[in-house]
Amino acid sequence: MTGTTLDDYTDRYARRVRGMTASEIRALFAVASRPEVVSLAGGAPYIAALPLDAVGEMLGRLAAEQGTTSLQYGIGQGTLELRERICEVMALSGIDVNCGASPEDVVVTVGGQQALDLVARLFLDPGDVVLAEGPTYVGALGVFQAAQAQVVHVPMDDDGLVPEALEAAIAEVARSGRRAKFLYTIPTFQNPTGVTLTDERRERVLDICERAGLLVVEDDPYGQLGFDGDAPAPLRARRRDGVFYLSTFSKTFAPGLRVGWILAPHAVRDKLVIASEAQILCPSNYAQAAVSTYLSTMPWREQLKTYREIYGERRDALLAALADLMPSGTTWTEPKGGLFVWASLPDGLDAKAMMPRAITARVAYVPGTGFYADGSGAGNMRLNFSFPPPERIREGVRRLASVMEQEMAMRQVFGPVARPSHRRRGQAGADVPGPDLA
Amino acid sequence: MTGTTLDDYTDRYARRVRGMTASEIRALFAVASRPEVVSLAGGAPYIAALPLDAVGEMLGRLAAEQGTTSLQYGIGQGTLELRERICEVMALSGIDVNCGASPEDVVVTVGGQQALDLVARLFLDPGDVVLAEGPTYVGALGVFQAAQAQVVHVPMDDDGLVPEALEAAIAEVARSGRRAKFLYTIPTFQNPTGVTLTDERRERVLDICERAGLLVVEDDPYGQLGFDGDAPAPLRARRRDGVFYLSTFSKTFAPGLRVGWILAPHAVRDKLVIASEAQILCPSNYAQAAVSTYLSTMPWREQLKTYREIYGERRDALLAALADLMPSGTTWTEPKGGLFVWASLPDGLDAKAMMPRAITARVAYVPGTGFYADGSGAGNMRLNFSFPPPERIREGVRRLASVMEQEMAMRQVFGPVARPSHRRRGQAGADVPGPDLA
Repeated sequence: MTGTTLDDYTDRYARRVRGMTASEIRALFAVASRPEVVSLAGGAPYIAALPLDAVGEMLGRLAAEQGTTSLQYGIGQGTLELRERICEVMALSGIDVNCGASPEDVVVTVGGQQALDLVARLFLDPGDVVLAEGPTYVGALGVFQAAQAQVVHVPMDDDGLVPEALEAAIAEVARSGRRAKFLYTIPTFQNPTGVTLTDERRERVLDICERAGLLVVEDDPYGQLGFDGDAPAPLRARRRDGVFYLSTFSKTFAPGLRVGWILAPHAVRDKLVIASEAQILCPSNYAQAAVSTYLSTMPWREQLKTYREIYGERRDALLAALADLMPSGTTWTEPKGGLFVWASLPDGLDAKAMMPRAITARVAYVPGTGFYADGSGAGNMRLNFSFPPPERIREGVRRLASVMEQEMAMRQVFGPVARPSHRRRGQAGADVPGPDLA
Repeated sequence: MTGTTLDDYTDRYARRVRGMTASEIRALFAVASRPEVVSLAGGAPYIAALPLDAVGEMLGRLAAEQGTTSLQYGIGQGTLELRERICEVMALSGIDVNCGASPEDVVVTVGGQQALDLVARLFLDPGDVVLAEGPTYVGALGVFQAAQAQVVHVPMDDDGLVPEALEAAIAEVARSGRRAKFLYTIPTFQNPTGVTLTDERRERVLDICERAGLLVVEDDPYGQLGFDGDAPAPLRARRRDGVFYLSTFSKTFAPGLRVGWILAPHAVRDKLVIASEAQILCPSNYAQAAVSTYLSTMPWREQLKTYREIYGERRDALLAALADLMPSGTTWTEPKGGLFVWASLPDGLDAKAMMPRAITARVAYVPGTGFYADGSGAGNMRLNFSFPPPERIREGVRRLASVMEQEMAMRQVFGPVARPSHRRRGQAGADVPGPDLA
């Protein structure tokens, strides 16, 4: 598992962890995927917590009893049955008929990634600007890059996206004569920071976008994974118009089925379906039947509770380990849900440059540079707490802290000259992993 | 089943059956999907021929016993295990190590559709020209349209793509100062015609493309569904370079899993993976495990034989019914495999205009206009023989023949004036279904 999860990230991060070639990163991750390495790098849910026997029985019956439909072609928009279940799921977080949510306007996608790609395909022309939190989801940066759009990051603090910074970014883009097509935001338990946009800021952000005529693309994979009570209502629950709502069953059920969705403004629903058909013809009938049967026949709310409990415990383990073990000068976010903590390293440490040594010390993380379009983030790392058990998390942090302390000591002895990347912070560099990786 | 299959086609054809709005076609297909309608319109495999109990058991075990990997994220390129199985499948038709086929260069996709979309995304810029058989796969036209490319059709005869016509088309495009990026071709048991490019022409087509520096995108969903012996070796088996080979398990196993692949030239393999990750992050681990387990533990060659026998029998039923029942002046192809027959109507009949009346007579087909980018094909229809059983096929043809005879009689009485579409053949029209559809 750990291997698969890391492999999964190899190629994606290879292209975003600046300063390493794909093959270098691949070599790095090949080492990192060894079982003795504690990986805080992934973003995988803890599938072992699912009742796999019961899920298996359900999946088996889907083929044996309904194979002539579940194994057959389906329709481009996705099955009505699943779209109805999706509306029930959304209603739990306040996106319901009162704000115009309807199975009619749901488009089933191949995970949240295709949802995002479809929105990009519909709206982005080369040279367009997308506003997004800085840092943001690495897969979104891949989509925007593929669309030849330019990402302008909007700074965050512990309360999420900073509204004043959003206003400034919109004004700045306008002044430069470019066109911002939408704000891409993960307001709840954000990837990679774990930060949640406050209730009050949600309203301000929506008002700002409304005034600027800016669409909002709300990505909400983690909203139902709150450990300390419910998250603030999604943006889409607050505004009927101007918000695309994207989500997925990857974090609440299983990513291996690749089922996500878009709740789209009615006017563009057909266009999204056409775009999706050109990409994939139709989503998997079998995977859709799996999710809708799971939702209609199995105790999925209980399962969500289980995920929340497990992840909450692991979040606690990570935060405690960080507090106990990290060298002073390190800071980190304290997420109330989701999968990730975002750490800021003591001044002078470079998470990317440090990575080969961290992996030699048998701990892996994702350097912050992967989450910015502009080369920032060298002083940051993303730490995952959903996959490794608590004691492994603590051991991972212990190893990480030790590597950081060695780095800081080396820095005192040799000075920054020994690590050329520090002189080029924020730029594409060439931090080749040393022979310690071989 | 019939309903789902037809629904599946509704949206796609709605945009390709020129002269009807999406909602008109939707209404038409809603009626067409009633069980009393014999549908020769779909393109669905006969899933009921699968050993569904055994497949169900296998799928159940995949989750129960391997859920922590099969339900987890995977890698963008697809699992090595499946890519190895895919190479075994390709080797059966001559695409093997001797012509450089390797799991390294296979990219697993969401059905054949995503394979095609990825190739388009990689190569096509707005305004580019794609050469394709006329008629060709409706989903390919959707991809090329989404890429804002222009399709130049190359005529076919009973031996497939006409090499001289291909040369002429290449020259014509060059003369017009445009750039043809690739030839898109379905050489074996083509959709929609069922026609197969002969051995000798395969070599000539490859030579022509090689001389012109034109890439070949070979789409081969049906190659293993030959009824009268093996099909000629695929283009990719004949040339190591310059050919993208696309295929799918939708026709040989089950379309509901959405698993296809590209065998790509090594130099662009990484680019395809990057493009796929931006679209879907990774293909479904579960669906991939389903296919690779099916291929490694179940008698899939026997199953192929079963599909071939069933479809062969149904092809015979369709050809016999056409010979027995069609009004004179009707001609059709005689496919040696695949799922489709392409019929040419007696002069003056318009398949699209006739469709509402056909559906009222409880038979459905796809009008030929759907398979051309340029509005041709009004005098043609595609007839599917993989899904309906032989007696239904015959009954469908009987109803169709009767509708055609009525049309011809009406035409004699009222003349072409009664059917305005005939005056605008080849152009976008507005053939609104009459009240007989209500």
